[in-house]
Amino acid sequence: MNKEKAVVVFSGGQDSTTCLFWAKKKFKEVIAVSFDYNQKHKFELECAKDICKKYNVEHHILDLGLLNQLAPNSLTRVDIEVDKETPKDSLPNSFVDGRNMLFLTFVGVFAKQRGINNIITGVSQSDFSGYPDCRDVFIKSLNVTLNLAMDYQFEIHTPLMWINKAQTWELADELEVLDIIKNETLTCYNGIIGDGCGECPACKLRMNGYIEYMKSKEK
Amino acid sequence: MNKEKAVVVFSGGQDSTTCLFWAKKKFKEVIAVSFDYNQKHKFELECAKDICKKYNVEHHILDLGLLNQLAPNSLTRVDIEVDKETPKDSLPNSFVDGRNMLFLTFVGVFAKQRGINNIITGVSQSDFSGYPDCRDVFIKSLNVTLNLAMDYQFEIHTPLMWINKAQTWELADELEVLDIIKNETLTCYNGIIGDGCGECPACKLRMNGYIEYMKSKEK
Repeated sequence: MNKEKAVVVFSGGQDSTTCLFWAKKKFKEVIAVSFDYNQKHKFELECAKDICKKYNVEHHILDLGLLNQLAPNSLTRVDIEVDKETPKDSLPNSFVDGRNMLFLTFVGVFAKQRGINNIITGVSQSDFSGYPDCRDVFIKSLNVTLNLAMDYQFEIHTPLMWINKAQTWELADELEVLDIIKNETLTCYNGIIGDGCGECPACKLRMNGYIEYMKSKEK
Repeated sequence: MNKEKAVVVFSGGQDSTTCLFWAKKKFKEVIAVSFDYNQKHKFELECAKDICKKYNVEHHILDLGLLNQLAPNSLTRVDIEVDKETPKDSLPNSFVDGRNMLFLTFVGVFAKQRGINNIITGVSQSDFSGYPDCRDVFIKSLNVTLNLAMDYQFEIHTPLMWINKAQTWELADELEVLDIIKNETLTCYNGIIGDGCGECPACKLRMNGYIEYMKSKEK
C-alpha cells in the first residue's frame, strides 16, 4: 500500500480544487486527472489546466467523449437549457448517468498502472442535489467493486462527503487556499470563473455557502 | 422492470455469441453492444458485426480507445507477444485492467437510456484464467454498484458463470447453434475465425472443450 501518492479526480471546480489542496497536504505526490466529455464550457478544462500548472501538479486529461454520445444532457449539449431550479420530483437535467462511476473507474485503471492506491474525489452527500452517484453508499460500493475488478487495494477518499458548502469554504480556509478557491476555480454552469454568473444552481449554492461561512467567521 | 428487452456485451467470440443466442431465447428484443479499443485484430469487430447482421440483432459499437491508452497490453499493442501459456504466478499478459468493469458500466448507461434493465455478459469463473473481473463476486458487487450509481434496477445475467468450455459447447448445442458457434465466431488471439490458430491459449481452451463435449455426447 503506497501511502505517499494519490490521484485526484479534478474538474477545476470549488470542490475538486479544495480536494486537490487537501491531498497536497496529506500526500507527498499528487496527480490530477480531468475528463474531457465535450463539456459545454471547454473553459472548465482550461481552468483545471491553469490551476495545475500554477500549483505544480502533474495533470492528465482523459478523453471521455463516449459518455456524451451515450448520455446527452444539458451540461454537454448546447440545445438543452440547464434547469434554473432543481426539479422537485426528478433528477436535475444536468445529470450525466454513470459519470462518477466512469470517472472513478478510469482513474482506478490509471492509478494501478502507476502503483498508486489512493484516489480522492470531491463528491458530497450533503449537497448531492439528487445525484445518486454522490452518495456515500455508492462510493463505498464502488470501492469494493474496483478492488475486486482489479484485484488491487484502492482507497477512495471523500473529504467533502459529510460537509456542506459553507464547511467546504471553511476547509479551504484551513488549508490556506480560500482566495485561490474563490477566484481561480470554476463551478458555474454558464462557464464563468470565480463568483460565476450568480444565477445557475451551482453559483447560488456556492455563493450561499460562502456568505454562510463568512457570517459564521465573524461571530 | 422491463422483462422483454436485454443488452448483451458482445465480442463475437464463442462465449458472448452463445450468450447472444441464449438471450434471444429468453428475451423478446436483444441488442448487442461491442467495444472498439483498438484490438490487435479488427477482425474481431467485423466478426461481431457479421453475426448480428446475419441473425438480425441490433448492434452498436462503442469507442473505448481510451482504455488502450491507459492499459497497454498484449491484446491491443502490436509490440508485445501474447503469452503461449498462462504464467503460473501472475495474470496472463492479455489482461486489460478494469476492462469488464468499464464494458458493463458503459452498457449500463446505454441500457438505462433505453429503459432496459437486463444485461448479459459471458464471463465465467470456471475458466477465468486469473482474470479477477470474471469472478462471480465481482459481477455481483458491480451489479449493486451500478444500481446505486444510477438509482436504477439492473439485472446482470451470467449464463456461463459456473460452466466450463465443454459445457458452453453443450449449451450452444441445446440452443441449436453449435455449428454457428464453431464456424462463425472468433476467439483466437491471433485473429483467425472458427477453429483459429490452434496454438494460442484461447484456441487450446476452446478446442479442448469441444473435444471433451463431443466425447461426452458419444457416450
